[in-house]
Amino acid sequence: MGDRFDYKYLSKIDYPADLRKLTVEELPRVCEELRTDILEELAENPGHLGSSLGVVELTVALHYVFDTPYDRIVWDVGHQAYGHKILTGRRDRFCTNRKLHGLKPFPFPAESEYDSFCCGHASNSVSAALGMAVAARLNKEKRKVVAVIGDGAMSGGLAFEGINNAAVIPNDMLIILNDNKMSIDRSVGGMRKYLLQLTTNSTYNDIRYKISQKLTNWGILNESRRKGLIRFNNSVKSVLTRQQNMFEGMDIRYFGPTDGHDVVELVRILRIIKGMKGPKILHILTRKGKGYAPAEKNATVWHAPGKFDFDSGERLQKSSDEPQPPKFQDVFGETLLELAKQNPKIVGVTPAMPTGCSMNIMMKAMPERTFDVGIAEGHAVTFSGGMAKDGLLPFCNIYSSFMQRAYDNIIHDAAIMKLNLVLCLDRAGIVGEDGPTHHGAFDLAFLRPIPNLTICSPLNEAELRCMMFTAQLPDMGTFVIRYPRGCGSLVDWRCQLESLPVGKGRWLRRSPATEAVTRQEGVCILTLGPIGMEAAQAIELAEERIGRSLPVAHADMRFLKPLDEALLHEVGKGFKRVITVEDGVVSGGLGSAVLEFLADNGYRDIEVKRIGIPDQFVEHGKVRELYKICGMDAESICQCIIHNS
Amino acid sequence: MGDRFDYKYLSKIDYPADLRKLTVEELPRVCEELRTDILEELAENPGHLGSSLGVVELTVALHYVFDTPYDRIVWDVGHQAYGHKILTGRRDRFCTNRKLHGLKPFPFPAESEYDSFCCGHASNSVSAALGMAVAARLNKEKRKVVAVIGDGAMSGGLAFEGINNAAVIPNDMLIILNDNKMSIDRSVGGMRKYLLQLTTNSTYNDIRYKISQKLTNWGILNESRRKGLIRFNNSVKSVLTRQQNMFEGMDIRYFGPTDGHDVVELVRILRIIKGMKGPKILHILTRKGKGYAPAEKNATVWHAPGKFDFDSGERLQKSSDEPQPPKFQDVFGETLLELAKQNPKIVGVTPAMPTGCSMNIMMKAMPERTFDVGIAEGHAVTFSGGMAKDGLLPFCNIYSSFMQRAYDNIIHDAAIMKLNLVLCLDRAGIVGEDGPTHHGAFDLAFLRPIPNLTICSPLNEAELRCMMFTAQLPDMGTFVIRYPRGCGSLVDWRCQLESLPVGKGRWLRRSPATEAVTRQEGVCILTLGPIGMEAAQAIELAEERIGRSLPVAHADMRFLKPLDEALLHEVGKGFKRVITVEDGVVSGGLGSAVLEFLADNGYRDIEVKRIGIPDQFVEHGKVRELYKICGMDAESICQCIIHNS
Repeated sequence: MGDRFDYKYLSKIDYPADLRKLTVEELPRVCEELRTDILEELAENPGHLGSSLGVVELTVALHYVFDTPYDRIVWDVGHQAYGHKILTGRRDRFCTNRKLHGLKPFPFPAESEYDSFCCGHASNSVSAALGMAVAARLNKEKRKVVAVIGDGAMSGGLAFEGINNAAVIPNDMLIILNDNKMSIDRSVGGMRKYLLQLTTNSTYNDIRYKISQKLTNWGILNESRRKGLIRFNNSVKSVLTRQQNMFEGMDIRYFGPTDGHDVVELVRILRIIKGMKGPKILHILTRKGKGYAPAEKNATVWHAPGKFDFDSGERLQKSSDEPQPPKFQDVFGETLLELAKQNPKIVGVTPAMPTGCSMNIMMKAMPERTFDVGIAEGHAVTFSGGMAKDGLLPFCNIYSSFMQRAYDNIIHDAAIMKLNLVLCLDRAGIVGEDGPTHHGAFDLAFLRPIPNLTICSPLNEAELRCMMFTAQLPDMGTFVIRYPRGCGSLVDWRCQLESLPVGKGRWLRRSPATEAVTRQEGVCILTLGPIGMEAAQAIELAEERIGRSLPVAHADMRFLKPLDEALLHEVGKGFKRVITVEDGVVSGGLGSAVLEFLADNGYRDIEVKRIGIPDQFVEHGKVRELYKICGMDAESICQCIIHNS
Repeated sequence: MGDRFDYKYLSKIDYPADLRKLTVEELPRVCEELRTDILEELAENPGHLGSSLGVVELTVALHYVFDTPYDRIVWDVGHQAYGHKILTGRRDRFCTNRKLHGLKPFPFPAESEYDSFCCGHASNSVSAALGMAVAARLNKEKRKVVAVIGDGAMSGGLAFEGINNAAVIPNDMLIILNDNKMSIDRSVGGMRKYLLQLTTNSTYNDIRYKISQKLTNWGILNESRRKGLIRFNNSVKSVLTRQQNMFEGMDIRYFGPTDGHDVVELVRILRIIKGMKGPKILHILTRKGKGYAPAEKNATVWHAPGKFDFDSGERLQKSSDEPQPPKFQDVFGETLLELAKQNPKIVGVTPAMPTGCSMNIMMKAMPERTFDVGIAEGHAVTFSGGMAKDGLLPFCNIYSSFMQRAYDNIIHDAAIMKLNLVLCLDRAGIVGEDGPTHHGAFDLAFLRPIPNLTICSPLNEAELRCMMFTAQLPDMGTFVIRYPRGCGSLVDWRCQLESLPVGKGRWLRRSPATEAVTRQEGVCILTLGPIGMEAAQAIELAEERIGRSLPVAHADMRFLKPLDEALLHEVGKGFKRVITVEDGVVSGGLGSAVLEFLADNGYRDIEVKRIGIPDQFVEHGKVRELYKICGMDAESICQCIIHNS
């Protein structure tokens, strides 16, 4: 690969200190090489492309002007940090990005001292950076702190809480508002409108820059000068644009907007504002996928495009002659529209993930009944609660790990009132390359204790459809359906929509009722969700190895809550060995529920082995690799069946 | 009571429909009576006084102008809704407010059709109301929706998410910003500054009102007129005040500020803006405790003053000749300051509860090291994470039920990086009169699955001190200490600060090591936290009744995570009966952890009975009453010990 492109500069930059030896005039060339390097790598080793291309110039300018790693840069969200990684000692290992034991998908302090904070979930940068700025002040460090936040992440309440607080706690933090006019899908909300207004006032901005330049000569401003300057600025602005800036209304100095792809200008501005006292915002305009035509043209697709051909810009799809099972996401999206056509009460709600969760299918067909509320998970649930309270039936789809942001909302704004709404937890369980911040590991454990909830997970696509159908029947209360990222197991998935009995599991194999004789010597496997397919395979493996000498029963619980008590009584009466398998943490989920049931109902002397995600943050890697690490793959389950038998 | 005061109007108002029969001129008198009624009731039956007095005029005006319950009013937070309750069919029962089986502490739909939503936690009103406004539109209902939000609640990210979204989803919602310049303690943040600026522009506001009056004649404005009007307003404003309103920058029409205690003027304004299309904000200025001099003077104390003498305004304190155990809150507050004096890395963080959690003690002594971040639990934790990342040691104190708002922050911004910070969960377990939204029921269950956490709960005040001391020792990682509301059990609590071994419990009674012979016939009680005192009492009760024939051992686990495995091995080997007792939900907490340990380690044939909060939302009432309902009081535990023996 190195042959095709000339990395004259990049080949000599191991760390930002090397970058700082260059002249400002050389930086555009560095940017060009960095952009090419990212593209070349991602063509082969898929990852998040668009946002990293968009901040190439910003990345170079920040590491050029600021004294990293002593100074802190907090990237919000870490998708955009590929250039940062390449410039901070990780260029050689960048080919391992997102691979098992390779570079982590997002900045993480344990990986590099240049990574200031965990940057997996959106909107946390301002709060974290404010903490660092306060620590610097109390520790009497001269350290500068920079938060880089996209306009999409700005719709998250956490970002607002951070900015609101940054306005009053003494700090010298710089917030860079990276305005690329979209989150993964599109940025929505009043803040977006507001930023757009700010960006369209070019006369005002020209004058602002001239004022900024003057500041250089002032050196470090004292407090009264600073206040005076803000007042002066406000006056100029009012006259010129009849606009007051909300940030400056909060006493946070505002600069911009400026072209985020002009690295020389960025360096010039950053040098000016770097030493200023007090909190400040620099608003830059960038373009997702910048510098690569196909990515600029369709930013949503090129957010994470998979493998592609560098020269042609063609995305390389795996093709197969065999029909493949669909993604759970697409089954959700198609089925939601199907149901919405039949049931006029159904509305869809997504926090900025219409494409990711496939709600875009309904959004296209029924735009007035589908709501992308921006990155705002808490609001998504409470807003759904309000609609449910007045008779609509929201399907609110949130990735499992992001639902952690809406925990109180589920309790306080839905379950406690027994509101009829459906929470669909996409990306539940191990998600793969996005790693520990994105695994939907905790949902079963954190949802199960909440009263009034119904919680289920489908074995396959057909069950997902039927669970969605069941959830929208009258008076089902707050209904949770969780399912994983990626493909299921049924090619022929478009089954008839039928209701499932709530709180009922089913025997997939060797119902105790039909094989009464062998039960006492056998093993019973209880599973929840698509991981049940893994268990089914494990049972086949076990039979191949030890024959039918060990009778194995298998029930798909379907519902974590309410539990199928009749089925569990059968288990309690019929088996001495039980194995539970779930794609979630083993503390508090299905396995714990089974233990609790058996204890509460006086079933003792039963060996229960719980298989699931262990009590640690699971790294990134392919789903299958991680299943193996967690002991959740068919082979491990098979070992567990055979062992002790 | 009715003898002392004349309720000429109030006695005839059962429902808002009765109120609407009066003339506008009669409303001030209604307000006066309503205020007196609230005061008279609360003098006897303690509750939240200040905020309800502050919205008397608003309450009357809203129910007078809007067609409740068809129109929706969402109160954020429900503290302020006492007047609302009295006017909506609950005056007779208001003497049961906050009492067991009496009126609920906060508005709740199941109690009254006038209560639109669950209003226990701050900042949810805008999102919920937006949902209702959308439902009205899709259902083709003419219903109006009003959210009433205090300036304190405005600092919550959820409120921002709601407003941000309300700016772009078509709706006709009215947001009333009730600006009383404080939350429970004081409102902090940039938004506060911003609102202050808005309130100080009287010239502008005068003119605005005249413009508003004109609108009456226009009737319902069409969209182009509306846009034109906003532009016109902006121009007027720019000239007069050199200010642009952030809400209008978001295309949400802004009115105000106006005097929230002038009921006639409120009615006039509400009638004008009621029918306007599009989202709008009415900013009113009120005073907490309005109309009652002692409460106006000290709003923090009179937020929830307890019993008081109506005439003298003297608060009636329970007095006792015996020295009493202190509140856990005060032990926390005193000890935090003590530790902070010794350890310069310690900082304090509270989301708007410095008085409630007693961090005001440190705040007074070390203002530069104590941060009240406003109602913003997520930010409180992430901000603490940022400080911890750069070497400070934050003690972040958040009520258990509000920590539900920071769940993702604990996982993503603390535990995953193993940051050294201390999360203190005040109000853990049953809290009493504040009811189901405020019980700290879920924390043990939702925190236990998170890797890297240390989770403990003190038996008494001395242990709280020692746990706090231990938590601040070097490299203790993310350390959770949960303790309940109210008093502990030790009068002489100011013990030496000593470190406790992490993950170690202790035998309080009959260690198996010392009583090896009797173990097999005995019962072992495992408890976590101050509920252990209840268990200790239960053991005494049991002995009184059946003598020492049934040997009972009792261990205080101290740590939920890591579990004391050595102790549990002793239990597994030594006992056939185990009872776990915890002040939290039984699904997923200590009891589940014990079951999991026993199962994982091959201890079968042990009867485990888990005592704790059952799988339902527990009502409000006195703590002791609720313990009994949950089977967590000494008598119930005693029954459990004796039963089956």
